[in-house]
Amino acid sequence: MSKTEKFVESITRRDDDFARWYTDICLSAELCSYSSVRGCIVLRPYGYAIWELITAELDRRFKETGHQNVMMPLFIPEGMLQKEKDHVEGFAPEVAWVTYGGKEPLTERLCVRPTSEVLFCDHYADIIQSWRDLPKLYNQWVSVVRWEKTTRPFLRTREFFWQEGHTAHATAEEAVEETLKMLDVYEEFYRDALAIPVLRGVKSESEKFAGAVRTYTIESMMHDGKALQSGTTHYLGDGFAKAFGIQYTDKDNQLRYVHQTSWGISSRSIGGLIMVHGDDEGLVLPPAVAPVQVVIIPVAPHREGVLEEAGKLKCALKEAGIRVLLDDSDRMPGWKFSEHEMKGVPIRLEIGPRDIAEGQCVAVSRDNREKVCIPLGRVAEEIPVLLEALRRRMLERAEKSMRERIYDVDSWDMFVRTMEEKPGFVRACWCGSPDCEAKVKEVTAATSRCIEEGGDTEGRVCFVCGKPAKHSVYWGKAY
Amino acid sequence: MSKTEKFVESITRRDDDFARWYTDICLSAELCSYSSVRGCIVLRPYGYAIWELITAELDRRFKETGHQNVMMPLFIPEGMLQKEKDHVEGFAPEVAWVTYGGKEPLTERLCVRPTSEVLFCDHYADIIQSWRDLPKLYNQWVSVVRWEKTTRPFLRTREFFWQEGHTAHATAEEAVEETLKMLDVYEEFYRDALAIPVLRGVKSESEKFAGAVRTYTIESMMHDGKALQSGTTHYLGDGFAKAFGIQYTDKDNQLRYVHQTSWGISSRSIGGLIMVHGDDEGLVLPPAVAPVQVVIIPVAPHREGVLEEAGKLKCALKEAGIRVLLDDSDRMPGWKFSEHEMKGVPIRLEIGPRDIAEGQCVAVSRDNREKVCIPLGRVAEEIPVLLEALRRRMLERAEKSMRERIYDVDSWDMFVRTMEEKPGFVRACWCGSPDCEAKVKEVTAATSRCIEEGGDTEGRVCFVCGKPAKHSVYWGKAY
Repeated sequence: MSKTEKFVESITRRDDDFARWYTDICLSAELCSYSSVRGCIVLRPYGYAIWELITAELDRRFKETGHQNVMMPLFIPEGMLQKEKDHVEGFAPEVAWVTYGGKEPLTERLCVRPTSEVLFCDHYADIIQSWRDLPKLYNQWVSVVRWEKTTRPFLRTREFFWQEGHTAHATAEEAVEETLKMLDVYEEFYRDALAIPVLRGVKSESEKFAGAVRTYTIESMMHDGKALQSGTTHYLGDGFAKAFGIQYTDKDNQLRYVHQTSWGISSRSIGGLIMVHGDDEGLVLPPAVAPVQVVIIPVAPHREGVLEEAGKLKCALKEAGIRVLLDDSDRMPGWKFSEHEMKGVPIRLEIGPRDIAEGQCVAVSRDNREKVCIPLGRVAEEIPVLLEALRRRMLERAEKSMRERIYDVDSWDMFVRTMEEKPGFVRACWCGSPDCEAKVKEVTAATSRCIEEGGDTEGRVCFVCGKPAKHSVYWGKAY
Repeated sequence: MSKTEKFVESITRRDDDFARWYTDICLSAELCSYSSVRGCIVLRPYGYAIWELITAELDRRFKETGHQNVMMPLFIPEGMLQKEKDHVEGFAPEVAWVTYGGKEPLTERLCVRPTSEVLFCDHYADIIQSWRDLPKLYNQWVSVVRWEKTTRPFLRTREFFWQEGHTAHATAEEAVEETLKMLDVYEEFYRDALAIPVLRGVKSESEKFAGAVRTYTIESMMHDGKALQSGTTHYLGDGFAKAFGIQYTDKDNQLRYVHQTSWGISSRSIGGLIMVHGDDEGLVLPPAVAPVQVVIIPVAPHREGVLEEAGKLKCALKEAGIRVLLDDSDRMPGWKFSEHEMKGVPIRLEIGPRDIAEGQCVAVSRDNREKVCIPLGRVAEEIPVLLEALRRRMLERAEKSMRERIYDVDSWDMFVRTMEEKPGFVRACWCGSPDCEAKVKEVTAATSRCIEEGGDTEGRVCFVCGKPAKHSVYWGKAY
């Protein structure tokens, strides 16, 4: 039996075994398959098409905000990785090392990039001389490698796909502004393209990126109440600039260090799509990242005129810029319904002899199965409206599901009990001490997801130690 | 001094030192810069933008011919690489080996993919069961690694970028048809998008891909008369299928092996663009892959109305779908002319007070410096015509340059003298013996580039040994 086949027949119910339901969808919707390369997956055409659409949505936003794509090498020499102390401490334990080129041992080991800060720094030191060279607003679309012990499709694999933005600025203010601007871009992308609401805020010291001064994050809540870190932006200060000697001559002829940022969203966003929107029938995709937005299924396709009318609908939709598939294969309509539901196609358009006689077709939305009759001549106008309505419903449902499962808590006992009994996030005030944070993690397995922006701590105390609170924090168990 | 700076000021004349002229263009046009990672380059925004356009042009053609994108892992376990004997012999000597994950030695070494035939085979064995699963027409856009000793930007680097198509078919006939179809796609892409003419044919046994039954190639001629292998398609037969057990149940219920192909075009096509079209002023880009197709340079920009009119031109061109840049920086027009010529921008549009008074602007084509006056209201109609005319001229010039430098030769002495004295290709008949081919390479450093399709060998003899000829072959020195 093949590595994939055994899962294709039926999928586990979501509320019976969430982890298994997740894997079933990955395989049955043909997003990916396991590979003989341990810890890595194969992205199949449907899964890769979703990633291409995610890429296109983000890339457009990056270019609109003035960023340019570049490509750094795949490898990092060991000496280069070691230049920034915190950074190497964070990443060295989990990198893959190349030690041989053909039959010859290398004089210096190379790691396969786990992230590319140091490569960008090496390049920036080479090309930045004057204030006229700033800012540099670069991004790259690549895969990176981290030697994880346990892996799950999209959520944690040894190789994964992402974009990494790396920018250099004249001042700290400009760099911080960039960090926040890209967090806005990420939040908007999640809301508008993925229909996923997020919480945003700052990471605690222990959760921040290795080498960063400050890490901002967007966090989303999965159906099982767990958190998925969905995108991060890092203000790097001038630490890397000092380690790599990235200096520019300012207008006043002074030599200064640049201030840097980095930011990334990865293919785990596909995992988020599955776990926020999916149901017992399979995937549910928001229109912007659905490889097929509308599938036309002819009912009684052998009856005169049915395939012809279906073909006309396809042309009309294609012309309107909609990604449409006409499933005219010889399988039964019921089989087709199931397959395209599994794949999360937002709208199914049914057309049969009776519909044609009545001059209409029937649109069924994937999320709520609502049926709408559309006059045949009006599909190009009506379908975009239905698609946008579906996106809104998906976002609202996810928003409601998240808001209802954020619990405000102010005592240790209540925190522990809530974390045990209720899937979701807890909002609780914290003194800022790493010890309190460590205790939470040790006892409940929950981590601080983010420090709430503008969270109110007036007169409040830390739920762990009772000392005055510094931050309002969202806590949760994370993927 | 930075690694890049020293080259930026002026470039070597093309006919003084072709190799240095080439490197000067790569750096001065800011296509790439050297990296501290030995043998690898950094693709800078302008160079990467060209690659993105090449990618888009090819990807569209692949999708139109029914291909789907997927993504295989970056790594190949040693045992998997060894499954097909000829393939591993060809590639093992030049791969990079990963031997450690973090601090732990791996039980099985992994190479960084030099090409992905075996990964696709491993996947195909997993997902192909029935004739209904065929054909599989997959492609991926990735970088691959080959541990080269000497490297040159774009032409030979340890990491390079490419697409690799991998297909599986029910019959040998279908697979051969695919191999030829993709060769057509490649030839058309080179002609229409890159304005580069190619010769096409079959590789000799000693030059074919490791593991292939037959390799088809397109070869182009650079300005210095050398050959650049520009794209190859391989008919793999069922050798990989047997090694990996890729079998399907046919309509008659028989178990059969699939027949496979693979095909690729890489970032060395950027090297081809430089070496076919470039001149002493820099790059000359064909419109389809020019990141900026038209640069508008205001003359006397501080005079009333000039910037305003320039802005209107920009809007009109942008609306017409043309990639346009308005250079309103505070540098001198002469400086701007040089910079955009260096970058190979196809058309420069000059507009100054006198032009505005006359209701026109002046378009200058990059290749022949021809000036054309265009009424201000007609740029959106006239510029596309000029761009297409430029592409045709570029193609015709390259075609003429290649045709004039192919020499028909029928004796050994003449062959050696021609190879010594005349840059270009030699067409000469060959008996098919590897010994004759090896002798040519040893004495003249030329290799058989391709066996001419339908070449006439009637009554002819091998120019090396005098035995009856089997093939008409193009010979040349290659990059």
